[in-house]
Amino acid sequence: MSAKTPLTGLVAATHTPFHADGSLNLSVVEKQASQLLIDGVSYAFIGGTTGESSSLTLVERRLLCAQWMEVVKGSALKVIVHVGANCLADAAALASQAEDLGAAAISALSPSYFKPRNVAALVESMAEIASAAPDLPFYYYEIPTMTGLSVAPSEFLAQAASRIPNLAGIKFTSSNLMEYQLCTAVNEGAFDIPFGFDEMLLAALAFGAKGAVGSTYNFAAPIYLRIMAAFERGDFAAARREQLRTVRFIQRLASVGYMGAAKAVMAMRGVEVGPPRLPNTALSAAEIDSLRVDLESMGFFDWIKPDASA
Amino acid sequence: MSAKTPLTGLVAATHTPFHADGSLNLSVVEKQASQLLIDGVSYAFIGGTTGESSSLTLVERRLLCAQWMEVVKGSALKVIVHVGANCLADAAALASQAEDLGAAAISALSPSYFKPRNVAALVESMAEIASAAPDLPFYYYEIPTMTGLSVAPSEFLAQAASRIPNLAGIKFTSSNLMEYQLCTAVNEGAFDIPFGFDEMLLAALAFGAKGAVGSTYNFAAPIYLRIMAAFERGDFAAARREQLRTVRFIQRLASVGYMGAAKAVMAMRGVEVGPPRLPNTALSAAEIDSLRVDLESMGFFDWIKPDASA
Amino acid sequence: MSAKTPLTGLVAATHTPFHADGSLNLSVVEKQASQLLIDGVSYAFIGGTTGESSSLTLVERRLLCAQWMEVVKGSALKVIVHVGANCLADAAALASQAEDLGAAAISALSPSYFKPRNVAALVESMAEIASAAPDLPFYYYEIPTMTGLSVAPSEFLAQAASRIPNLAGIKFTSSNLMEYQLCTAVNEGAFDIPFGFDEMLLAALAFGAKGAVGSTYNFAAPIYLRIMAAFERGDFAAARREQLRTVRFIQRLASVGYMGAAKAVMAMRGVEVGPPRLPNTALSAAEIDSLRVDLESMGFFDWIKPDASA
Amino acid sequence: MSAKTPLTGLVAATHTPFHADGSLNLSVVEKQASQLLIDGVSYAFIGGTTGESSSLTLVERRLLCAQWMEVVKGSALKVIVHVGANCLADAAALASQAEDLGAAAISALSPSYFKPRNVAALVESMAEIASAAPDLPFYYYEIPTMTGLSVAPSEFLAQAASRIPNLAGIKFTSSNLMEYQLCTAVNEGAFDIPFGFDEMLLAALAFGAKGAVGSTYNFAAPIYLRIMAAFERGDFAAARREQLRTVRFIQRLASVGYMGAAKAVMAMRGVEVGPPRLPNTALSAAEIDSLRVDLESMGFFDWIKPDASA
Repeated sequence: MSAKTPLTGLVAATHTPFHADGSLNLSVVEKQASQLLIDGVSYAFIGGTTGESSSLTLVERRLLCAQWMEVVKGSALKVIVHVGANCLADAAALASQAEDLGAAAISALSPSYFKPRNVAALVESMAEIASAAPDLPFYYYEIPTMTGLSVAPSEFLAQAASRIPNLAGIKFTSSNLMEYQLCTAVNEGAFDIPFGFDEMLLAALAFGAKGAVGSTYNFAAPIYLRIMAAFERGDFAAARREQLRTVRFIQRLASVGYMGAAKAVMAMRGVEVGPPRLPNTALSAAEIDSLRVDLESMGFFDWIKPDASA
Repeated sequence: MSAKTPLTGLVAATHTPFHADGSLNLSVVEKQASQLLIDGVSYAFIGGTTGESSSLTLVERRLLCAQWMEVVKGSALKVIVHVGANCLADAAALASQAEDLGAAAISALSPSYFKPRNVAALVESMAEIASAAPDLPFYYYEIPTMTGLSVAPSEFLAQAASRIPNLAGIKFTSSNLMEYQLCTAVNEGAFDIPFGFDEMLLAALAFGAKGAVGSTYNFAAPIYLRIMAAFERGDFAAARREQLRTVRFIQRLASVGYMGAAKAVMAMRGVEVGPPRLPNTALSAAEIDSLRVDLESMGFFDWIKPDASA
Repeated sequence: MSAKTPLTGLVAATHTPFHADGSLNLSVVEKQASQLLIDGVSYAFIGGTTGESSSLTLVERRLLCAQWMEVVKGSALKVIVHVGANCLADAAALASQAEDLGAAAISALSPSYFKPRNVAALVESMAEIASAAPDLPFYYYEIPTMTGLSVAPSEFLAQAASRIPNLAGIKFTSSNLMEYQLCTAVNEGAFDIPFGFDEMLLAALAFGAKGAVGSTYNFAAPIYLRIMAAFERGDFAAARREQLRTVRFIQRLASVGYMGAAKAVMAMRGVEVGPPRLPNTALSAAEIDSLRVDLESMGFFDWIKPDASA
Repeated sequence: MSAKTPLTGLVAATHTPFHADGSLNLSVVEKQASQLLIDGVSYAFIGGTTGESSSLTLVERRLLCAQWMEVVKGSALKVIVHVGANCLADAAALASQAEDLGAAAISALSPSYFKPRNVAALVESMAEIASAAPDLPFYYYEIPTMTGLSVAPSEFLAQAASRIPNLAGIKFTSSNLMEYQLCTAVNEGAFDIPFGFDEMLLAALAFGAKGAVGSTYNFAAPIYLRIMAAFERGDFAAARREQLRTVRFIQRLASVGYMGAAKAVMAMRGVEVGPPRLPNTALSAAEIDSLRVDLESMGFFDWIKPDASA
């Protein structure tokens, strides 16, 4: 994989599995991986926002990476390791491990407690990480709703192009589709810009997105594959109908705290990724029951069947 | 026109023409209208954000409306009157005038110095305006980057449906395409949701938008008509190429203050709408020259020719 | 009054009185004025944020000003007229009226639907207003929580000093006390900076504030006069105790929507200023009862007695 | 030290010293400590925002703590260890070390990549940290400009009071002085609320602050001690004059990036704490020269002399 061979299809931003007491439960990774393959997902993006990487120790992030690389050995599933951290030395160490273990790519968000003052500071920060895995494609991870960063990603790309030799593109989790277009156009389309807002995937397809990285691809990938197929055949009525379904269930999950709700849905599907860690919070038993009822009532569990027709 | 007959095609959010000294120059309206017809625009949206309505006196807003209604008499161009204001009594007076003069519809944004505390307060505020023109379709104008409002437009629509009999839909100027989808789905698609971010039009088309209200349709409508045509025939490569052109020139205009730059572009095209009023600022002569050179260099003046091929 | 003779003591930002149906009820102004005199307030600031000026028509603002000027004729109460508006022509017209009728000073906030792009645009906007009342002291009104403006007021002051001959200072309603200090220091203290956050008055006194403009001075002035007196005699225990009282009741009012609650408190005191206009909302009868009970329970109605001891 | 024995005087939020290549340079800690003692500072707050803790590895944070505890052994300087981190397990480990090594107190900010959804989630997050050092006073660190958190600190305090036995108070770095007052009043003044905005110290003194934690106390403590002394003797003219000096130099430092500028000032004073780590950036040689000239010109190097008169 390189900037010349973009990510295609769905990239699931995977959960980090915990025991009920919050300790790491790596035995679940195998189940996560097999479910993704069943659902038609192409890549596992590990240790990202959905993976609660900011709530993991460095040791845990290393163990998680090692486990995933072991599990996917010989399978069709490829692994992209998110290595970003407030501490760039930690991020670089994780990048180096990812390269050693044969990951397909790495990605990193910007430090966000301290925010880079300008584009140059962001480029230098990312260069420090990317240079620790020089043979892997590097994806900058834009997600301003979480980081609070205001650097235009297209300006990052333009300046980083000559500074970061292994720069592959941007994991673009933002609703700023003007910036999305600018990113796809930098250096005449040299960079790969997988899209990160699941509930707006159809918009990104219209703008040429080939791949999508998201959290709900862990448990609802079939819906999105149908969106992609409908887009390909020009069936916008079907594409909109499916995309609206995702809007409905995402709105429901978000109403009780997305992270806890999403992990509860994983359990409903038989993949016991456990509760989130603080400061994220788990749903109460009553909230889980209510969520299940509502999801059933809207048809969610049918929608996410791989063989469901659009 | 009603909620049953949605706005289709391009709705130009027109500039209010001023003399060099800032006084109203209504003689230009005729030229504006004829240019829109030449460019294939279906509606003139007058006195909105682009129309600097917040910088006009109530008397001037009345005169502007009267002039437009007079000018379009007998022409194919329809007029939608923006009547929103911090003072709801002013807005209601403008709504009443619009109905009296036979406008096609009215629209209003929320008061934004004081912001409604919740959905109910917004609904009541809009009801006060809409009820002053009970026979005209009413469009709520969502534009959170200007108003700072955080009320979800889909919740407004759901609650206003039974409170505002003449509610037709929402002029949706926001990049929140999750909300856009929710709005299109309220009451099984009962409402018309024309889209308001010119530079993301293609995304809205993918989500089913039939009409678009925007500022750059005053001088660059042909590009957007080509986007719509390309979308219709499934030619996304062409649609993206055209949309990227709009991103390029909008970015350039915004770099020196959008309002002053857009009015300068109007003058370059021979429609002398004059400078903006304070607090918006006009471009200096040097800035205008530089803007013209850059626009020429990117091909802008060819792009906006009605007969240009995609 | 000029920059050389700063505002001293309390300036009440008065409510605009309405009938129950929302129409202007100017007969109440006399009662408002007499109550302020009883409470030891030095100035009435009319048509500001508390006065809901953005919800008034221009005609109503003129009537309000005329009524106040008539009522205070021959009394010790001086009137400062807030004239700010999104439309600078409206603001200038109000400024001119204020000068004609003999107001003590005028004040204006920045247009906020369109926000000045930089300090220069703000200065020009304010100059347009101030020049319409050249013989009156002009106070720029800084209140970023309402306007969303990010221009540093100290930079405004520095640039406006030579551009606006009648610039007297700033009505400073912001918690940025670093900026407050910078404002007091511009041109070696040439400008008057009355403070606008009632609940932090003690902090401003520490930084040298001589006057304070605020909404709760309409009904709780005695508390603040005791704060000022305690500060003067160095009794910080007393000053803090009184200031904490204001924090308590302001927090309670804000919990149900400050504007509606404050107008309800006025009625409790016998000054029937009526409900606010939309988009602000009135308290329900139940909310008013509950508010009265809570205020009684905390001692509010004793605190606000002019003769209460600290 | 406990909630019953509040922090008094100045608490310097110390820099973490690096070599020119960015590696930890613990040999400088001794110099830092001795300079603080010379300057009349009572406590060193280590590994906080100024200490760039988010840019340090866990191992480095442990080494930094061990070094400080070793250095201050037998001296009058007490150490407060900031242990906050996005990963609560890391924070708890640091808390435990701080207790083992005999620190005076610990403090922690909230995770900020993920933000607690409500007060309860924040309380639980802080409880997880505080319980790892049950015999040390625990200070919650409020700094919304960095964390983006919107939980009211007074509500945190009210709910945490019964949940966190060793809760001592809040390091309050916010300009919301209404909240400051509410915090000081929780449980009838049971908690200690040292103030964290150096440039507004005088305001906090007026509200009863006994201690202050800040970054500029590393190199400009004498100015602040004079502010405290002037406040004590009721000399507000002197207090304001000194406080304005701090506003002047802080504004100058911030203009080129505070962290890099502050570390440059430390070097000017002979305490070679080195450059900051990315994403913070060091000043260029030219920027340092210009900064020195400007500081000299305003009198900074005289102001910070311990023996300077007010």
